[in-house]
This record gives sequence, C-alpha cells and structure tokens, in this order.
Amino acid sequence: MPQTPHIERHFKSSAIVRDIVIGMSDGLTVPFALAAGLSGTIATSSIIVTAGLAEIAAGSIAMGLGGYLAAKSDAEHYKSERKREYREVAEIPEEEMEEVARVFRSYGLNQEEIAPVVEALSRRPKDWIDFMMRFELGLEEPEPARARVSAFTIAGAYVAGGLIPLAPYIASSSASKALMFSVAVTLAALLVFGFVKGRFSGARPLRSALQTALIGSLAAGAAFLIARAIS
Amino acid sequence: MPQTPHIERHFKSSAIVRDIVIGMSDGLTVPFALAAGLSGTIATSSIIVTAGLAEIAAGSIAMGLGGYLAAKSDAEHYKSERKREYREVAEIPEEEMEEVARVFRSYGLNQEEIAPVVEALSRRPKDWIDFMMRFELGLEEPEPARARVSAFTIAGAYVAGGLIPLAPYIASSSASKALMFSVAVTLAALLVFGFVKGRFSGARPLRSALQTALIGSLAAGAAFLIARAIS
Repeated sequence: MPQTPHIERHFKSSAIVRDIVIGMSDGLTVPFALAAGLSGTIATSSIIVTAGLAEIAAGSIAMGLGGYLAAKSDAEHYKSERKREYREVAEIPEEEMEEVARVFRSYGLNQEEIAPVVEALSRRPKDWIDFMMRFELGLEEPEPARARVSAFTIAGAYVAGGLIPLAPYIASSSASKALMFSVAVTLAALLVFGFVKGRFSGARPLRSALQTALIGSLAAGAAFLIARAIS
Repeated sequence: MPQTPHIERHFKSSAIVRDIVIGMSDGLTVPFALAAGLSGTIATSSIIVTAGLAEIAAGSIAMGLGGYLAAKSDAEHYKSERKREYREVAEIPEEEMEEVARVFRSYGLNQEEIAPVVEALSRRPKDWIDFMMRFELGLEEPEPARARVSAFTIAGAYVAGGLIPLAPYIASSSASKALMFSVAVTLAALLVFGFVKGRFSGARPLRSALQTALIGSLAAGAAFLIARAIS
C-alpha cells in the first residue's frame, strides 16, 4: 500500500484531536469555575444549574461558530493569496523568480547554487505557485470540510466537558454538597484530560495533567472569591 | 532605513492583534449570552452581575493561562525538534540530505537541479537545520516573551469585552430593563469589533461585522431559551 493515505489519516485525526482539546479545555474549566463561584453565594442548586447550562449553550455556540468562521476565513485567505500568486507569476515572473531566489539566499546559498532551482520552477508554473504558497507565504491548503467538522467537534467537546462539573448540581439540590462532588469529579476529569492531551501533543503527560488541573483550580478559585466579595 | 525593523514590528503587532481578537471575541459573547440567558428567569440584576463577574474571572483566567501554556509548549516543541534535527544532521547526514531532496522533488524538480542546493546546504549545518525546521517541519521559531505577553493580552481583552454587556446590569437593578440596554450596547460593540477585526485580518469588514454580531446573537438567544426552558 502507498504511504500517503496513512499520512492523510494521521493528519486529519490530529486536527480533530486539536479541536477536541480546544473545546474540552474551556468546557471543563469555565462552567466548573462559574458553578463553583456561584456556590459561594447561592445556597440552592437550581439557579446554578440554570446559569451553568446557559453558559454551556453560550460557550459552545460561541466557540463552535468561532471555529467555523476561523476555518472559513483561512480557506478564503488561502484562495485569495493563491490567486494573487497566480497573477504575479503570469504578469511579473522576473520579480517572482527573484522572490524564490531570496528564500534560498536567506539560507546562505549563492546565486550559482540557486539558479538551477529557480530556472526549473519557472518552467512549471503550478509547482512554482505551490512552492511560493508554502515557502514564501507559509500557507498550507486547508481541507474543504474542515470548517463544519471543526465547528461541531469544538462545540460537542465543550458540551461534554461542561456537563461533568454540572452533573452534581443537577443531582443534588444543596449547592454546598454539590460543590464538593463537582470539585472532586472535575479535578479528576481535568487530570485525565490533561494527561491524554499531553500524550497526544508530545508533552510530558504528568506535567500536562497537573497544569490542566491547576488552570481549572485557579479559574474556579478566582470566580469563587469574586462572587464572595460582591455579595 | 533598512526594511527589516518594519517587518519585525508588523509581525509582532499582528500577534498581539490576534490575541486581542481571541480574548475579545469570547469576552463580548459569552458573558453577554450568560447575562441575557439569566435575564429570562431572574428579575433582579444582582445575581446576574455576580454570575457575570464570576464568568469573566473564570473565562479570562482559563483563556489567558491556556494561551500561556500553548505558547510555552510551542516553544518547547520547537526546541526539542531543533535538537533532534541537530542530532540527525550530525549522525545520519545522508538521510537528512535525502529529506531535503524529497522536499524539492515534491515540486517536480529533478536530481540534477536539486543536487547543488543539497550540496550547498550540507556544507552549512546551521542553515541546513534552519531550512529543515521551516521547510520539512513547517515550524517557525517562537518569540521568547510571547507566552507572557499573550496571556495578559488575551485575559485583558476578555475582561474588557465582558464588562461591556455587564455594565447595564451593574447600573440598573431591573434585569429586564438592563437586558434591553445590554443587547443594544453589546450588538453595537460586536459590530464595531467585527468590523475592525475584518480590517486587520484582510476579510471584508462589513461581512465580518455582521458575522460577529450574528454569533453573539445566536449564543445569547440559545442561552436565553435554555434558561427559560429549565425554569
């Protein structure tokens, strides 16, 4: 079997993993911190559940649609830059050849070493444009379905993450009792999530687990103190 | 004057603009949606202000620290990949030369055209490694102070954005009256922010303004309906 399909699959799955990480990081942290903060001033769970679910709805839509538009605008940016390169290669080929040469000169190559490559590229406009997109502008062609998949992945991960700290408040009507369970469940979830995230991203998993739990704790602690200070 | 300082400044300011956009997008949207959602079930502003400020604290810390760790792990990833390239160039130079050749072959160049460049790079290990980092791995060296600046920029933008929709609730004790002002002020802020964001990112400013306001409205509408449905 050729190697390309495997690489392709690897790349796609890592984009999805990245979106899950984006959604779940905030989904586990912000609703958790909000619920913990409100527990400092509100005794019954029902208002906290309402606030928490409203936050999950708002956060997942804002992040999902935000991801959708970001991916769409990446795709448009790529298309418009490509069109510009296409035009420039046709209209001002000498300047574009000079730009290719400049890329290589920045790595200490001299005119004699550069010339064959510049020559060869100038005879193949499609490869030339591909080269400029990647090496002059640093742009990669985005996948077409990226935006939609990205939006749903981020939003879904946010909802899934957000329901974990909220579950104890749904189960118990006493906010202070729910808070204890919520802290325990969410800290465990943050540790597991941080560990897995570290594994996938090539960071040290244990350090990633502790850092992720620390961010959640700091955010929740700050929300708790601010809510206390106000009321 | 040489051109480099200008490019440098342009690049730095665009990283800060990107961080402001990240923080303010969510800061304007999520606290706004949360407050609007709670206004559907809670008549007095004080609990909404508490929830809103707790959310702003939680969201700004989660996003700011998240940005900090992301920038730190980018920097570590770059360093460890660079170390690996350094080792490989020293230990298995033939394979690394073949990797350089492979980059060029993918743009349709033949062995004869590639050889001088590969030869020249192999005589300059530092440039060779720089070349591999950028063209094989697609990695750019992150700025050293990036992580800290990024964290404070994102968090500050989130707080600044979040206080806009909350201000009417702080000013008026009637949640329904505050809601109307909050919707008006926040929609205006989202339109202005979307317009400026479009200007900076090279998208059509008017379309960006409408899209940004639409995301905020959808998130707030969903939060409102969910809060209503629960209570």
